[in-house]
This record gives sequence, C-alpha cells and structure tokens, in this order.
Amino acid sequence: MEFPSKLIENAVGELSKLPGIGKKTALRLALHLLKAETDTTASLAEALAKMRFEITYCRTCHNISDTEECSICANKLRDHSTVCVVSDIRDVIAIENTAQYQGVYHVLGGVISPIEGIGPSDLNIDSLLVRIPDSEIKEVILAISPTMEGDTTAFYLSRKLRDYEGVHISTIARGIPMGGELEYADEITLGRSIVDRQRQTR
Amino acid sequence: MEFPSKLIENAVGELSKLPGIGKKTALRLALHLLKAETDTTASLAEALAKMRFEITYCRTCHNISDTEECSICANKLRDHSTVCVVSDIRDVIAIENTAQYQGVYHVLGGVISPIEGIGPSDLNIDSLLVRIPDSEIKEVILAISPTMEGDTTAFYLSRKLRDYEGVHISTIARGIPMGGELEYADEITLGRSIVDRQRQTR
Ligand SMILES: [Zn+2]
Ligand SMILES: [Zn+2]
Repeated sequence: MEFPSKLIENAVGELSKLPGIGKKTALRLALHLLKAETDTTASLAEALAKMRFEITYCRTCHNISDTEECSICANKLRDHSTVCVVSDIRDVIAIENTAQYQGVYHVLGGVISPIEGIGPSDLNIDSLLVRIPDSEIKEVILAISPTMEGDTTAFYLSRKLRDYEGVHISTIARGIPMGGELEYADEITLGRSIVDRQRQTR
Repeated sequence: MEFPSKLIENAVGELSKLPGIGKKTALRLALHLLKAETDTTASLAEALAKMRFEITYCRTCHNISDTEECSICANKLRDHSTVCVVSDIRDVIAIENTAQYQGVYHVLGGVISPIEGIGPSDLNIDSLLVRIPDSEIKEVILAISPTMEGDTTAFYLSRKLRDYEGVHISTIARGIPMGGELEYADEITLGRSIVDRQRQTR
C-alpha cells in the first residue's frame, strides 16, 4: 500500500503492530483520527503513554493497580482465605465480571513455555509460595487455561503447593460450555465432562 | 466492565472511541501494550500525535501531503488533463493501489448531506471550479460512491461543471463487481449493468 504522507505511513505502521489490526484497519483508524478534532488524538496518545509509563502492580497479587495494594487485596470484605491463581490480568477482569468469585487473586504473569523460553523463575511463583505461610490461605484455585503450557504450569504449581499442609488445591471445572452442543465438543472435553459429572441434589 | 486501574480504564475508554473497536478489543490492545516494551507505546503515541498535529493538505487537490504540493500533483509524468474527483483521501489510496489511473485528483473532503448539515460550501468544490480554468483539465471523472448522498454530490457537481466548455464529465462504471454473481446483485445495479453494457471488440 502506498501512502501520500510519511506521517500517515508511520501512524499506520505503528497501529498495525497491534494484535488483530491489519494495514487496512490501521489506515481506517488513522483517517478517522485525522477527521476528528485534534483533541481526540491528543487524549488517546496521552492515555496510552500515561498507562504504559505510570502503571504499577499490586505488591501482593501482581494485579494491575494504581496503588501499592490493589483494590481487591485491600478489600476486607473479600475472602482472603481463597486465592485464585491466573496467568494474566485479563483473567482477573474476566472472573471479576462473572460476579461469582469473592476470594483474592495471584497473577502469574504468563505460563511456563519452554519454546518461548519462559521458565518458573520468570513467573510470579515464588511470591505465591512466600505468600501462603504468611497468610490465612486455605484454598488455592488453579484457574489456568487448559492448553499444553497451561497444564504444565498447573502441574508444576500443584507439586510445589503439595508441601503446604492445610492448603487445598482445586482447579476450575472443565466441561461442555453453556449453550455448547455435545456433538461439537472435542473428545477430551466430552470425556472429562462425563468423568467429572455433577450429581444432582434431589 | 470493571477495571483494576484508572489508567487502564482511561486507555480502554480512549481506544474504544475508535471505529470498530469495542471495549473487549480495546482491553486486549491495552494489555498488549502493557506487556510489550515501553518503546512500543511511546512510538505509537508519538506517531499518532505527530500525524494529527503535523499533517498538511495539498494546496491543489487537498490530498494529504507532507509538502505544500502532494507527490501526485508534483509528478510531471502524470496526466494533468484528467482529474478524478473523490470524496475522501482513502479513495485516492484505493484508486492508486489499482495502478490503473495516471491522472490527478481532487478530494472533496466529504459528500453533500443535508441530514448531517454538510452543504456544498463545506466541501472543496469552489477550489475545483477555480482550478479548471487555470489548468489544462480536459476531463473530470466523478468517482463518488453511488449512495444517496454521493449521487446528490455528483449531480450537483455535474450541473456546476456543465458551464466549462471543453471539459468532459464522466462517472466511474457501475455494474456487477468482479466475481459477483448476477442473482445476488440488487436490481438497480443489475439494470445499470445491462444499460451500460460494453460492446466486445472482435
Ligand atoms: Zn492485589
Ligand atoms: Zn495534490
């Protein structure tokens, strides 16, 4: 694609580095910004730079936070005896949006991936292990995506957590998604959903 | 959606003002930037701000340009006797990418739209009318999208351009798109494609 201006070409180039944004979409976004008031672009550029340069992470759970301790860790009304371990901040947001969970979190910051050169020491695992004896934690929920790397990470954590007496380890339920049709489920999920069947209360 | 940080909330808010970017996509983009080097965000923010604040438009054709006269108008090898009138800069880019056109352009900057309060005086129409007598223009191609507003704009321009003797007015061909199936074409397009049929050369 040829551009009539280096300024546009650069903007399109930077925008199209974002995941899921191709050259055509990037151009549409750039032209939208050119048509809109200069304020629109100024606010966007400022918000992005401010976020990236001023963001801090909770010293306890590594969730994103504007304060030393995040609003979830600081909330006395939450159940601090249950810790949900997730790989990513977006998982915290997703679980919070279900409004089904009242415990606290621990964000690993990724999953173990030998291919990408990510080992246990690159993740927030030590801080989880240090956190447990210091606290009232009774249950650790491993809420890690059931991918190969996720399963490796969960397995690694299970082994490490086994040493802590009085701390239960659980994993999120796997099975057929709500609204999902049995015939389209993969074999492993379907098999798992039968093995892990839930007895109905009469 | 609840956010663990005002900084993220602001960034997501600004990103989701962009066309076609919902809250979920905006969050994905924000978290991508947080994971990437700070340079990625700095370059993006700077490219956007630089584009918006430093962009200029060609004094002749109103195409985007980093110089007073755009590279198309400045190109002596192009056919300056043919002007293609388009509503938007993205049309210039689209036509240039076909590599089928060797003339020059005139960018209106929109179409006449009484509903949106856009009249002829809000568009770069006067500068087109002034441009014609001063130049060697022999043909004006109206390459405006065949929407109601586009047709209104083309009709308005045709009437104005009729006064210039020796200047031919043409419109881009309408018909069945390449690869399009007849049975799915709307009646008006199909009818037009029959009326404007092209005689094959033997
Ligand atoms: Zn926290
Ligand atoms: Zn020009």
